Amino acid sequence: MGRWAPDAALRLERAALELFAEQGYAATAVPEIAARAGLTTRTFFRHFPDKREVLFLYERELPAVVASLVAGAPAFLSPLGLVMHGFEAMAAGPFEGRRAELQARRAIIGSDEGLRERELLKNVLLAGGITEALSGQGVGKEEARLVARYGVLVFEIALNDWLDGNSDTFSDVLHSTAYRMGQLVRPARQEE
Amino acid sequence: MGRWAPDAALRLERAALELFAEQGYAATAVPEIAARAGLTTRTFFRHFPDKREVLFLYERELPAVVASLVAGAPAFLSPLGLVMHGFEAMAAGPFEGRRAELQARRAIIGSDEGLRERELLKNVLLAGGITEALSGQGVGKEEARLVARYGVLVFEIALNDWLDGNSDTFSDVLHSTAYRMGQLVRPARQEE
Repeated sequence: MGRWAPDAALRLERAALELFAEQGYAATAVPEIAARAGLTTRTFFRHFPDKREVLFLYERELPAVVASLVAGAPAFLSPLGLVMHGFEAMAAGPFEGRRAELQARRAIIGSDEGLRERELLKNVLLAGGITEALSGQGVGKEEARLVARYGVLVFEIALNDWLDGNSDTFSDVLHSTAYRMGQLVRPARQEE
Repeated sequence: MGRWAPDAALRLERAALELFAEQGYAATAVPEIAARAGLTTRTFFRHFPDKREVLFLYERELPAVVASLVAGAPAFLSPLGLVMHGFEAMAAGPFEGRRAELQARRAIIGSDEGLRERELLKNVLLAGGITEALSGQGVGKEEARLVARYGVLVFEIALNDWLDGNSDTFSDVLHSTAYRMGQLVRPARQEE
């Protein structure tokens, strides 16, 4: 979540999240964000094409992070096991402990239709990154694609459920979502 | 796919698809679409808030159509079986035989980032409609939500694969995608 991004980009992201939360996304202009971060408008545009993209900074590294986690997973895991291993490491690492921040971000995104649409693109990009990571581990292209899409769906549902709640850890929610989904979608015997 | 929409809306949709294919989405203005359909710009705006929404006419009825299909499915089916029964009826009915038209629409959507983002919203709306339909059939809210999201994912993957190919029927592609996905995501015994 931005840990590997340039310092200026991270400061702009933090300033934008504050201002969007305080006065709304629509009412906030780029020069205000830059000023809050102690930077110039010009610097803002060196890091982001527009106001919207500042909310999606962490996406830039997400596929690479998940790919490295998949590559580092135990080799005996199934393709789905590889993906869930990567997501569990994300959940227990960069996400855990940041619920309040992620809830604030989600509230801002929910306030604007353009942001909601943009947010959905994240899942497509993430699935693409995971598909490549699985292919790199020798999983067939077709299988990699299906497993990546499924894993991203489970992760997204679990993330939203975790942000809705206030007691469980993200790891626990992710684990139980993956289990329940697996039970519900396994082919019934008479349908095979 | 628009069969229950007002005639003027359907004519505008057809005119827009033609013009977008001929000269591009960005280069086409609302008055041109209205003129091609033999209608006024004012009529256009009675049916659609902007140029973009003309490409999403069929969405308006999709949740209701799928809900009625789910409600009409045999009662012995599992929740996932109910959803797939609805999608199979869609695949064999309104979709089959319209591959060329749907390919043209997909190409237009792929040409514009705003359209691609908007297209992703369709799946969210569809999953919401299916969740309600399943709840109406007595499926628990939590289970309904998970099964709906999974079913929409399978349908979307199958739709794209069908549009990529040129020989199989949509029903065949949908059936084989559902089967392969089910095989890949079933929990392995050692992970349960």
